[in-house]
Amino acid sequence: MQVLKVPIVKRILSANDQVANTNLNILNSNGIFALNIMASPGAGKTSFILQTIQPLSAQHKIGVIEGDTAPVTIDSDKMTAVGIPSVQINTGGDCHLDAMMIDEAFKQLDLTKLDLIIVENVGNLICPAAFKLGTHMNVLIASVPEGDDKPYKYPAMYRGVDVLILNKIDLLPYVPFNQDYFLQGVKMLNPILKTFLVSCKTGEGISIWTDWLGEHVKAQKK
Amino acid sequence: MQVLKVPIVKRILSANDQVANTNLNILNSNGIFALNIMASPGAGKTSFILQTIQPLSAQHKIGVIEGDTAPVTIDSDKMTAVGIPSVQINTGGDCHLDAMMIDEAFKQLDLTKLDLIIVENVGNLICPAAFKLGTHMNVLIASVPEGDDKPYKYPAMYRGVDVLILNKIDLLPYVPFNQDYFLQGVKMLNPILKTFLVSCKTGEGISIWTDWLGEHVKAQKK
Repeated sequence: MQVLKVPIVKRILSANDQVANTNLNILNSNGIFALNIMASPGAGKTSFILQTIQPLSAQHKIGVIEGDTAPVTIDSDKMTAVGIPSVQINTGGDCHLDAMMIDEAFKQLDLTKLDLIIVENVGNLICPAAFKLGTHMNVLIASVPEGDDKPYKYPAMYRGVDVLILNKIDLLPYVPFNQDYFLQGVKMLNPILKTFLVSCKTGEGISIWTDWLGEHVKAQKK
Repeated sequence: MQVLKVPIVKRILSANDQVANTNLNILNSNGIFALNIMASPGAGKTSFILQTIQPLSAQHKIGVIEGDTAPVTIDSDKMTAVGIPSVQINTGGDCHLDAMMIDEAFKQLDLTKLDLIIVENVGNLICPAAFKLGTHMNVLIASVPEGDDKPYKYPAMYRGVDVLILNKIDLLPYVPFNQDYFLQGVKMLNPILKTFLVSCKTGEGISIWTDWLGEHVKAQKK
């Protein structure tokens, strides 16, 4: 937003980073690994979280923090339905989560009883990239029907993440999507980006991701 | 964004509205009809604009203003390829277009020679809703693979638009999408919202939209 050029906003961003550091310390002292899941609206964040929880919940205790711009509980209801503790953050129209919101959400969870926290950010490919939450890993979900030009058009998001999930690969036969062009754009912006190709609908590729994530959760456990 | 609660930002918004009014007067005095196209990234804004231009360009002189967060010309190149004058706005990472950017773009177009201006906003379902551009009509493109819960989760955007396009209806057989649930959410937020169901891939439903739009362009012509 234009207002980001106003000095006072720089101080807000820096205050955010301070709280993000505190959040990270809280997670580490409790032996919790945490993900910040970001994506465009409708890329499949909630389905991806449900698919991630399913194989991991036998071995690890998982909590979810759901960010939404409106006071709806559509996503957190889905977590409750599978027995996962979740906290719903209503940003009141704001376009991203910030570290202060996560700090508040931590107070609603029993952190001594969790191994993994998954944060579902607000659906937005621009603003969330500017706000650290204090999680260990920023995960971006792209989806096939969004089109192959997204890395080129939303570079800040692709530059700032640690993991890329390309979701909805089951739709590859039905939509124009040049995978080489997409991955070339990704490589240009973020050459070491760990990438997984999945379909949350069919389950394809999910176990490769959850096996990999499981190792990180195990390593962080006290 | 949180900073919207700071008084100085209210003054910026009000300044935006003033420039939006000026833009509207400029359009009206030149007999130009203008659309502000908003959507989530990958909903099909550029394809929709190309499909809209095709049948209308024989009767009307059309110009396009392309908003992007990065200095890429992917979209404006597509307009140039079909002989349509276009202006590319690089927001420098900002998450929406504002009226001042449109005012600048107007200076790059020969307004005396246009009947219709289509503005393609930055791909974002939240922030653009807060910034009037001075166009006659706000058009939201939703797309089937985004999912049927989007009106419930992004209500501000659905409330603030005049026209809704549901794109990618060719994917209805391949993705879970309850059209009744989607339209019920839309009706709750915006009961008089004019809605068109289209596929930019197959062309289905496009002529109903372009016939309707063509009448508005004709009525506005000097």
